[in-house]
Amino acid sequence: AMEKSYMSVFLLLVALSCALAKDALKKETKDTKETKPKLPQTLSRGWGDQLIWTQTYEEALFRSKTSNKPLMIIHHLDDCPHSQALKKVFAEHKEIQKLAEKFILLNLVYETTDKNLSPDGQYVPRILFIDPTLTVRADITGRYSNRLYAYEPSDISLLFSNMQKALKILKTEL
Amino acid sequence: AMEKSYMSVFLLLVALSCALAKDALKKETKDTKETKPKLPQTLSRGWGDQLIWTQTYEEALFRSKTSNKPLMIIHHLDDCPHSQALKKVFAEHKEIQKLAEKFILLNLVYETTDKNLSPDGQYVPRILFIDPTLTVRADITGRYSNRLYAYEPSDISLLFSNMQKALKILKTEL
Repeated sequence: AMEKSYMSVFLLLVALSCALAKDALKKETKDTKETKPKLPQTLSRGWGDQLIWTQTYEEALFRSKTSNKPLMIIHHLDDCPHSQALKKVFAEHKEIQKLAEKFILLNLVYETTDKNLSPDGQYVPRILFIDPTLTVRADITGRYSNRLYAYEPSDISLLFSNMQKALKILKTEL
Repeated sequence: AMEKSYMSVFLLLVALSCALAKDALKKETKDTKETKPKLPQTLSRGWGDQLIWTQTYEEALFRSKTSNKPLMIIHHLDDCPHSQALKKVFAEHKEIQKLAEKFILLNLVYETTDKNLSPDGQYVPRILFIDPTLTVRADITGRYSNRLYAYEPSDISLLFSNMQKALKILKTEL
C-alpha cells in the first residue's frame, strides 16, 4: 500500500523542470557520499539564516493555522542556477527579509504529495502562498503565463508586493 | 479540499502521547516569537550533528529507494523529557552514530499524514525503520507492548541491535 502511495513522488520528481534538476540531484547524492558537511545542515539553506524556517509541510500548515500567519513556500533546488540566483537576491533584500518575519516559512527541495502546491505544474523556483485558512492563494502570481509561480531575480519587487498581498488575510465567509 | 485533507493533521497532533507534548508545543511557539535563534536551525536537532539528515519524508523515501539504504525515522518532541533523554544517549553512543551512517535518517517533530508510520498510534519518542523497498519494518520493535516503537535510554543496546536488523535488506519476492 505504501509503495503505491509514494511511487507518485518519484514520478513527480522527474517532472521538475529546472534544466539542471536531474543532474543536480545526482550530484548532490554523490557529494553527500564523498564528503560530510562540517557544519550541521540548516533549515534556511541560505534563504535567510536569521529567519525561522519550518521543516515540513505538516508543521508549516499547523503553525500557519495556529499563528494566523500566512505560509510562504519556496520550492527550489540546490544546483538549479535560477533557484540560486533568486535565493541570493532574496537573502540580500533587507525589506524582504524583514517582511518574511510575518510569514510561516518553508523551503523545499523535494515536492510534497499535495497537488494543491503545483497548480500549474512542478518546477523550480516556485513560490506559493497559503492563507491561514489553509487556502492556496493561487491568485498571487508572478510574470510568466506558462509558470505562474516562478520568479526571476529581476522580479524581486513583484515578489515583495506579492508578499504584502499575501499578508492581507482572507476572511472566512462561513 | 485542502482544508479537509489536512485537518486530520491537527487532530492527530492532539493524540501525541508524551505527557508534555501539548505544553511543549505551546512553549516552543512562544519562544520562537520572543527570541530569534542565533544560529541557523539544524536538521539534526542534536541527534547527531555530524550525520546527514533528510528534511522531509518524501525526500527520505526517495533517497532510501535510490541509495538502497534503509530509512530510520525518529519521531520526537523538543520539550518531551523522554525524547530528550533518548536523544542524549543516541547522540553520545559512538557505535550507534557510526552505524547510523548506513541509514537514510529523518527526525520529525510533526507527524506525517502517512498512517503506515503509526502502526500502534502516535507517541514520542517513536522509531520506525523502512526498507528500501518502501516497506515499513513493523517487525522491528522495542520492549513495550503498548508502544511497540518506543525506546527508553536504557534500551539503547536493543536499538543498536534493531538497527543492525534493519540493515539486512528485505528481498523483493516478485
